Formats: sequence, C-alpha cells, structure tokens
Amino acid sequence: MPCQASSTLFEREVLIRFSHCDPGGIVFYPQYFILMNGLVEDWFTEGLDINFADLVMSRRIGIPTVRMDCTFSRPSYIGERLMLGLTVTKIGSSSFWLRVQASAGSEIRIQASQALVTADLDGIKPIAIPADLRSALMRYQLQP
Amino acid sequence: MPCQASSTLFEREVLIRFSHCDPGGIVFYPQYFILMNGLVEDWFTEGLDINFADLVMSRRIGIPTVRMDCTFSRPSYIGERLMLGLTVTKIGSSSFWLRVQASAGSEIRIQASQALVTADLDGIKPIAIPADLRSALMRYQLQP
Amino acid sequence: MPCQASSTLFEREVLIRFSHCDPGGIVFYPQYFILMNGLVEDWFTEGLDINFADLVMSRRIGIPTVRMDCTFSRPSYIGERLMLGLTVTKIGSSSFWLRVQASAGSEIRIQASQALVTADLDGIKPIAIPADLRSALMRYQLQP
Amino acid sequence: MPCQASSTLFEREVLIRFSHCDPGGIVFYPQYFILMNGLVEDWFTEGLDINFADLVMSRRIGIPTVRMDCTFSRPSYIGERLMLGLTVTKIGSSSFWLRVQASAGSEIRIQASQALVTADLDGIKPIAIPADLRSALMRYQLQP
Repeated sequence: MPCQASSTLFEREVLIRFSHCDPGGIVFYPQYFILMNGLVEDWFTEGLDINFADLVMSRRIGIPTVRMDCTFSRPSYIGERLMLGLTVTKIGSSSFWLRVQASAGSEIRIQASQALVTADLDGIKPIAIPADLRSALMRYQLQP
Repeated sequence: MPCQASSTLFEREVLIRFSHCDPGGIVFYPQYFILMNGLVEDWFTEGLDINFADLVMSRRIGIPTVRMDCTFSRPSYIGERLMLGLTVTKIGSSSFWLRVQASAGSEIRIQASQALVTADLDGIKPIAIPADLRSALMRYQLQP
Repeated sequence: MPCQASSTLFEREVLIRFSHCDPGGIVFYPQYFILMNGLVEDWFTEGLDINFADLVMSRRIGIPTVRMDCTFSRPSYIGERLMLGLTVTKIGSSSFWLRVQASAGSEIRIQASQALVTADLDGIKPIAIPADLRSALMRYQLQP
Repeated sequence: MPCQASSTLFEREVLIRFSHCDPGGIVFYPQYFILMNGLVEDWFTEGLDINFADLVMSRRIGIPTVRMDCTFSRPSYIGERLMLGLTVTKIGSSSFWLRVQASAGSEIRIQASQALVTADLDGIKPIAIPADLRSALMRYQLQP
C-alpha cells in the first residue's frame, strides 16, 4: 500500500463484544466512545509515532475531549467488525478537531466531530500543542 | 413542593466515583454518558411515571440515542457531586430531543443536546412514541 | 436504630441499571465489582469517616484489590434494588479482608471475600495501614 | 507451531489502554474481568470453533460466571501488553471451570479460577452443556 503514507485517514478494525452490548442486544452508545478513545490511542502510537502511554505517564500530557457531536445512524451487534477511522479537520493553538467514522462494510454506523485539547495532567490546564504533536497532526489534516 | 409538578426540569445529583476517573484524575468522558443514561432512566421511572425497567423488559421498548452533541467545559474530579438535569426541547413522531446539563455548584461542566428514538427491541426498529410516553414527555417540554 | 453504631455491617442499596446489564438482560458480572467498589468508597467516606476522594487525591493512598473470591448464586435484573453489605474479617499490617454480600430481599445474589492493600499511589507500593484507617477498620471487624 | 493443535492453552495478547486505568495510573480491577471475558469470547470463536455471537444471539445460550477466585499479584500500567491465557480444569453437567492467567513477559499479574454455567438466555436457567461445546471443551482440558 504505497499510498498509505500520504493518506490522512487512520483506520482500525474492532470486534463488537458482549461487554459492549445492552439488554437490547446492541452496542450501548457510551461504549462507542470507549472504542473511539482506543482508536485515538492507536493513532497516536502507530500513526503519529507518539507513544500514547508515554505521553500520559512520562510527559504528563493528556488530551481531554471538550466537544463531541455524534450521529448514530444504525445499531451495531455483537460479533460485528466495525471499521473505525479518523482524520484531522482543524488544528488550533491548544486544541484539534477530528472527524471520526465507524462503519460495517459499506454501512455507516457513526459519524462524529470531536475536539480535543492538549492539557497538563498536573492541574488539568490547557497547554500549547507540543511541536512534535503539531507536526504529526498536520500529516493527518484534510486539505480544504 | 407544589411547584414541582409545573417544572419542566428533572434533576438528580450524582457522586463522582473512583471508577469514573482516568489516570489524569478526572472523569473519563464516556463515563459522563453512562451517568447521563442513568439520569434518563430515573426520569422515566420517577419523573414520567413510566418504569424504565418495565419499558425495556416487559414492553420491549428501548430508547437508543441517535444524536449527541456535547460540550465538556470543565473537568470533574473524584468526590465531587454533580447536579444533572434535563428538559425536553422537541417531540417528533418517533424521536424526542433533550437538553442535558451537568454542573458542580454554579459551574457548568457539560451541556448536551441529545436525540433519542423509541424502538422495538425485537428488531431495533423505530416505532411511534407510545401515547402514555408522549403525554408524559409533554409535561417536561420547554415552552418556546 | 440505636444498635447501628455498634454494628460491624455497612450497607448501601443500589439500583440495577440498563448500563449494568448484558444481552441476556442480567447484570454482566464485572459490573458487580464496579458496584462493590462504590460500596467500599461509601464505607470509607460515610462509615469509616475517612473521605475516600481525599485519601486518593490528597494523601495519595490507594487500596488496590489483591484477592477476590466471589460466588454469584443468582442473576440480577434491571430495575432491581440490591442491598450491598460488607464487614471486616481480618486486618493485617498492610492489608485487610472484607466479606461482601449482595442480596435482593432475602435472596442472596453474591457472596465475596476480598483482600485489599493500602498502597502509595506514587509507585504503587504497599504501605502499613495508616493509624486512623486501622482504628476505623477495627470498628467494622467481626468478633471471632 | 505444530504443537499448537495439541495444546490445552488458549492465549491472546491485549494492550492496556487509558480506559482500563484508574487515578492511580494502574488497571482498575473490574476492567481485568472485562478483558478476561473478551478472552473467553475469542476462545469460543477461534479456539472452540463455536462462534460466540451466534451462541448468544441465535442459539440464545449464555455462559454466566458463577464463581471467580482471583489473585492480583502485581499492578498493570497503560501501554503494557498482557498475555492472557486459559485452560479447562473441569467439565461438569452444566458448568465448566477455567484456569485463567495474565502475565507481562515472565511476570504473572493475575491468576484466576473461574466457573461458568451454560444457561438458556430466555429465563436464565442452567442447561446441560450442548454436545458440540462439550467435545470442544475437552480439547482444552488439562490432563490430571
């Protein structure tokens, strides 16, 4: 996949598990956000080359979510494999925006727009996006 | 509290627990949605007088969330007591919209707009809002 | 309830919610442990008079679980109210043992034996049980 | 790996994520049980060749846990990769026992003994272990 390097899309597949589902047999919507948080972690470590665990534990930088606009178009069921994907839509001074999507085959299940802030974990105060993160984010930014 | 009946606001206090918090020591944002789901359950059972467990287990009606727009303005910490509140902003044929808020004292932590659909749990298909639920929802609808 | 003060039993009622239940319509067993952790928190703050949030955030002392032996005798359903109770069975130098129980009316749902360790959260190392905690624990210790 | 087929051990690696960890920066113990439940699901689908989602949704058979004895010997941290493994220790008429272990490299983190029951999900009543499951379980049973 020679085009991979130039893509602004980061994707990972997840299996819908028993623990994600509710008495209706479908994914309980807060569980989608836990899955989406896992996607962001994998993206940091594998896509941005900024190890997420090190960012949090060594550099003491967190990325709390400050805005989430999310449409759930169709339910998801145990045993399904969802493709989660994200791309960067905007980079500010201490925040950045993602477009996140989940689909099963060609059927879209979730479309979200999410804003995250870089924060000092000792005090939970916004900080400027560190230089290494900023340049990495730019590689995933959609061109207008 | 004779005025209670005429209020369109339903509120419940929740304690922020260890299990809600992340390595940054603040509430992990998907946990807010679990708390907000609890608020909706309590509102059904105690505010709308439609027992939520019966709705799901006996009548086999669920209320999946189809849209969630949420702003997280400030972090919340273990041991804090948040006041969660909701009101109805719109009632459609098979969906209704809520405005949900969480605050600690006078400080707003979360403001959300949420759309839910009434669905037949055996098949997860939208159904018209049942008559008893519709009239109950109207008691909590904000007047324009 | 004049005998309350001399009881070694700490109890709290919890409502089984939608978020606790799985596609079988019963509590997903890891959720019981989250509920039991909430009981321990309430016991610290309200029973032992040691505010749990302060213990963790200010004193930086945690109480990780190192042993859990648990029997789940019967399933629990959404809408049920479970009475959770605990008592202290043993106090060591840096660990203590609880007997924990959950019941719905006269029907026992869970019986557990749990060991917890007092730990310095900066490094997660066992520490001797602090004096104030030790004397508080003794008030809830079953007499042999 | 020619010996794989004759092994009674089923293993899967999991990444410890932000969502698993608590304000102490270590895995919150109920999260281990969610991970262990995922291991059992993968074992059914990939090891026993009994698709777990089909078992639950089509055959309406669940496997609730009725006993869990678990020792947590050392904490686990975000970013670690744990190897989870299980083997069958006993097969009864409607229940079976597993030995489950989690380790990071050569360091054991968790050792558990778990009993599960086969149950009819419509009513949550124990049923005899179905023939296909019984013969599959025997392939993973430790020889005495």
